[in-house]
Amino acid sequence: MDSGNVAWILASAALVCLMIPALALFYGGMVGSRRILNMMMMCFGGASLVAVLWALFGYSMAFGNSVGGLGLVGNVAEYAGLGQLLAEDPTASIPPILFAAFQLFFACVTTALVAGAAAGRMKFGAWMIFAGVWATLVYFPIAHWVFAFSSEDGSVVGGWIANNLGAIDYAGGLAVHMNAGIAALALSLVLGRSHGWPKVDHAKPHSRPLVLVGAGLLWVGWFGFNAGSALSAGQSASVVFLNTAIAASAGLLAWALVERVRNGAATSMGAASGLISALVAITPACGAVSPMGALAIGAIAGAVCSLAIELKFRLGFDDSLDVVGVHLIGGILGTLLIGFFATEDAPNGVSGLFYGGGFELLGIQALATIAVLVYSFVVTWVIAQAIQRTVGLRIEQEDELRGIDIATHSEFAYLTDEDPVDLGAPRK
Amino acid sequence: MDSGNVAWILASAALVCLMIPALALFYGGMVGSRRILNMMMMCFGGASLVAVLWALFGYSMAFGNSVGGLGLVGNVAEYAGLGQLLAEDPTASIPPILFAAFQLFFACVTTALVAGAAAGRMKFGAWMIFAGVWATLVYFPIAHWVFAFSSEDGSVVGGWIANNLGAIDYAGGLAVHMNAGIAALALSLVLGRSHGWPKVDHAKPHSRPLVLVGAGLLWVGWFGFNAGSALSAGQSASVVFLNTAIAASAGLLAWALVERVRNGAATSMGAASGLISALVAITPACGAVSPMGALAIGAIAGAVCSLAIELKFRLGFDDSLDVVGVHLIGGILGTLLIGFFATEDAPNGVSGLFYGGGFELLGIQALATIAVLVYSFVVTWVIAQAIQRTVGLRIEQEDELRGIDIATHSEFAYLTDEDPVDLGAPRK
Amino acid sequence: MDSGNVAWILASAALVCLMIPALALFYGGMVGSRRILNMMMMCFGGASLVAVLWALFGYSMAFGNSVGGLGLVGNVAEYAGLGQLLAEDPTASIPPILFAAFQLFFACVTTALVAGAAAGRMKFGAWMIFAGVWATLVYFPIAHWVFAFSSEDGSVVGGWIANNLGAIDYAGGLAVHMNAGIAALALSLVLGRSHGWPKVDHAKPHSRPLVLVGAGLLWVGWFGFNAGSALSAGQSASVVFLNTAIAASAGLLAWALVERVRNGAATSMGAASGLISALVAITPACGAVSPMGALAIGAIAGAVCSLAIELKFRLGFDDSLDVVGVHLIGGILGTLLIGFFATEDAPNGVSGLFYGGGFELLGIQALATIAVLVYSFVVTWVIAQAIQRTVGLRIEQEDELRGIDIATHSEFAYLTDEDPVDLGAPRK
Repeated sequence: MDSGNVAWILASAALVCLMIPALALFYGGMVGSRRILNMMMMCFGGASLVAVLWALFGYSMAFGNSVGGLGLVGNVAEYAGLGQLLAEDPTASIPPILFAAFQLFFACVTTALVAGAAAGRMKFGAWMIFAGVWATLVYFPIAHWVFAFSSEDGSVVGGWIANNLGAIDYAGGLAVHMNAGIAALALSLVLGRSHGWPKVDHAKPHSRPLVLVGAGLLWVGWFGFNAGSALSAGQSASVVFLNTAIAASAGLLAWALVERVRNGAATSMGAASGLISALVAITPACGAVSPMGALAIGAIAGAVCSLAIELKFRLGFDDSLDVVGVHLIGGILGTLLIGFFATEDAPNGVSGLFYGGGFELLGIQALATIAVLVYSFVVTWVIAQAIQRTVGLRIEQEDELRGIDIATHSEFAYLTDEDPVDLGAPRK
Repeated sequence: MDSGNVAWILASAALVCLMIPALALFYGGMVGSRRILNMMMMCFGGASLVAVLWALFGYSMAFGNSVGGLGLVGNVAEYAGLGQLLAEDPTASIPPILFAAFQLFFACVTTALVAGAAAGRMKFGAWMIFAGVWATLVYFPIAHWVFAFSSEDGSVVGGWIANNLGAIDYAGGLAVHMNAGIAALALSLVLGRSHGWPKVDHAKPHSRPLVLVGAGLLWVGWFGFNAGSALSAGQSASVVFLNTAIAASAGLLAWALVERVRNGAATSMGAASGLISALVAITPACGAVSPMGALAIGAIAGAVCSLAIELKFRLGFDDSLDVVGVHLIGGILGTLLIGFFATEDAPNGVSGLFYGGGFELLGIQALATIAVLVYSFVVTWVIAQAIQRTVGLRIEQEDELRGIDIATHSEFAYLTDEDPVDLGAPRK
Repeated sequence: MDSGNVAWILASAALVCLMIPALALFYGGMVGSRRILNMMMMCFGGASLVAVLWALFGYSMAFGNSVGGLGLVGNVAEYAGLGQLLAEDPTASIPPILFAAFQLFFACVTTALVAGAAAGRMKFGAWMIFAGVWATLVYFPIAHWVFAFSSEDGSVVGGWIANNLGAIDYAGGLAVHMNAGIAALALSLVLGRSHGWPKVDHAKPHSRPLVLVGAGLLWVGWFGFNAGSALSAGQSASVVFLNTAIAASAGLLAWALVERVRNGAATSMGAASGLISALVAITPACGAVSPMGALAIGAIAGAVCSLAIELKFRLGFDDSLDVVGVHLIGGILGTLLIGFFATEDAPNGVSGLFYGGGFELLGIQALATIAVLVYSFVVTWVIAQAIQRTVGLRIEQEDELRGIDIATHSEFAYLTDEDPVDLGAPRK
């Protein structure tokens, strides 16, 4: 065991945890002031539930020995409760229990991402049920497909995408972002649009500074997500780190530029979205490309996603906070662009079309993309329908109009005129 | 010296520093908009003063050789000014000066925690005096009792709880949380209630999003607090990290569930408080229990503390921000539950009642709890009384009613209508 | 390569990235509510552009082999695009690509710092041009002067201040803070004052809690900035870490004390500014002094800068957010005070006047200071004039008065009354 590697994964896990409050800020600022608490509660509540399920059986489903060696799902009983990981494994490069902690937050963040499609109109209880079932039936298996590598001696069999298909997904373009993005689409379709959509004043961003700060903190946390996925502190993590920094910057600039050209003004919402789009796209690719490849992928993601977020208005689904436009499209872009920009010199060590490789890598990436999209969409749609037909998904129309925060959580986010005693009151 | 261990403790110390702004947000959001600056200033100002005192003599009092070998307090002169630590100690596993920096923030955070009992009504100068004296007479000695381990060769004698009694306090259930909690009780009793308490509109949370974000950032920082207390980057820190993640999640869910059952709605204040309660309770226990033990302790803390915060209304003390209900009760719970849930397989390597151990561990934990509670309460009460009778603790009633921010700091937190020139003003 | 060192520099780079959203908060809270988005966009946009330029040619200019061996600027082609760094260098103590990532954020943060002089009145396009040109002509060369060390075998020649003059600048008093501070002065002079300055209501801080939180997060990030500059995880980084913690605390206390004595009230703005002033001053000195030296430098910086920020009113320049008073003065103080407080026992291993050294060190520090101030001021002034005379620097007066956010970014920061449907509206 190498203490330097352990030190970096410990720090990385803390950074990924930072993405939970960061996402709550990012999403929370984007909704109206009577919906923010619910949005933040969906992030924190969903994440907490998934963390507990992860300890109970999720880690086993994702990283247990593949049931029947099929590469579809891990043995749910293998690490149930995680007590098995208290024993030190002297052969591991980092403690398995640390890997479980690091990956725990991947599950939490991915589930919380889906919440962005359901802003302001979903029953909180229904969301919590959805989060638990979705993590169990969608995230844990797909994490197994993509992230569980077979051991070299064949004693542990991992997931089919990682081992049989051999697709590249460094830190979660497939398992995290396109998965959450397509699930958000399915959920928003079953859930239906906000009343009055798309002209809903109370759905507009009530605090853009929170959005920008949330995006900035997500960026910081993302270094744990991506560079931590090296599972070591060395050259690979360093390359990934730099690629992540450059892609994000290029994405912000690209989105801002497109906005400036199209609408005459670069907005803060666009800057934040450009940053996140590029981070999404570089997530699967961060170990496969050069810094200039990262720059290109980030810029492409920023530009394309800035157009993609208009899809919802054309197609008429209320993906409130653009999980589809940013995470689904960004995730697909990053996964497929590996087929073009991958270079042998990068940690993954394979070449894409632009670096002398053939079409094979692109085909593999496309197959993995299709598999994840189909599975996640179908199962998510079924889960949402099942909840819809039992406990119900939507809150009452009246509650939606007066604000889900007070209706569901008995709270208002802000109380600014709280003092009836007026002695030198501040100017408001 | 192992660079991996050093890397993790450097990162951990930065994470613990993050708890200062995080606490300022958590506490600041919970008070009215005319009290937030004072609350944040109590956190930042108190922490800064304690940091300076730590460098001057606090580290010596906590980690110097025990005066007379009694285990009560370290030799105040031993490391005065900390210049002695500039010399490298080749035998230490991490540089002593790094340990001093890491523990510095423990002292800062613990003192800042107490401020939550005094929201909106305490003279700022009196608070600063209190913070300095309290750290000196209460925190530094108790840190010696609990955190100062004797050297193996007997050349350095540490504190009586750590070495003679042998109680388990991995990262500060005794020294940090129940200590701050009982001190908050003593201070709030001497300070008296806010005017109009408990029906004080201007004492209500003015920004729940800040509370949630503060809680989330505290969570992130807590990984430095707990897993950094391993003082190394290996199996122990990894177990502690996972336990901390799981306990926190379970605490959030438990508090939310109790609220939902009792009041029909899970609030954001409850979610934030549940998260923190569980983090408090797992702090002493994080190295002694299994992941399922952590889950149980977190859940118990979330549920019990959600009831405990009502004590103040029954008993009539104005512990404004529930330092007693969360930190005192949570700290006691975590310390005592070690006696039940400790398992030999965890880093501390001892067994509690549920894992085949006897009552001895529980007795030891209870004795340590009583010692800390009695000492901290009595000395804090005396300090508060002494300040009360000299410079005075309370601001004028008029100042309290018009808001302590303007009265004490000559500032309002927010200025939202600042522009007299009205050309296309935003809708407000 | 040592994985522990790598782990710490990875974490440090993430911490320095945290300074971007932290600075956006710190600056954003200090301006009016119709200027915050623009201020945050200047931080994020400028930082992103500089990150891309860094990858394209900035790293080469700063850390490439010195052109002609003159120590003035690195070979711009040497690492163009950074692809050269994908290859592992087995002789390096940390991967060069990690060093490039770590230093990338130094360039970003330094450029963003300058934005504080231009709040609320600069064309966003002009700012972006300024940021790119300034980083290229001012920051990259000065970073070469100060941070680029020649290799021992002479095969790589670094900058003249680091190698020929031998001035001490541990983490950027010269290259970062006084550089940004004097550039802010030059830019504010060319840009001119806000309309109505200094009595501009809409330029007043609209959210002091954001300022405090931003300062707190900057503090956390600063540990990466300073202790990461050790480029290893050992005794040096540990000393630097402790010094940074203590100086910051002393600075906050000193500023608050001066305010209390002069004006009768310690403000939150003062506390935040004191913290940052001290962090600025300790940045060059953090490896050269003892903890008590750090305490002294922090306290001096806090006290002096609290007076220095009044210069702008006397001299009549609108350095909106006190970049001059805090970063220029703080940076000069820290750089020169090394000449007094440096002690051989600290990592830099040289002695200043108070520790038996002569005037030589002070003279060297003064020479480096003058060189950076003159070069940065002159070149920045020329850049600003060039932009002024071509695309123009200022927005229209009408746009400035109605708010740059809506005028330039088509957005308002806050939307608090968003819901026309009034069913149980929250009290506002």
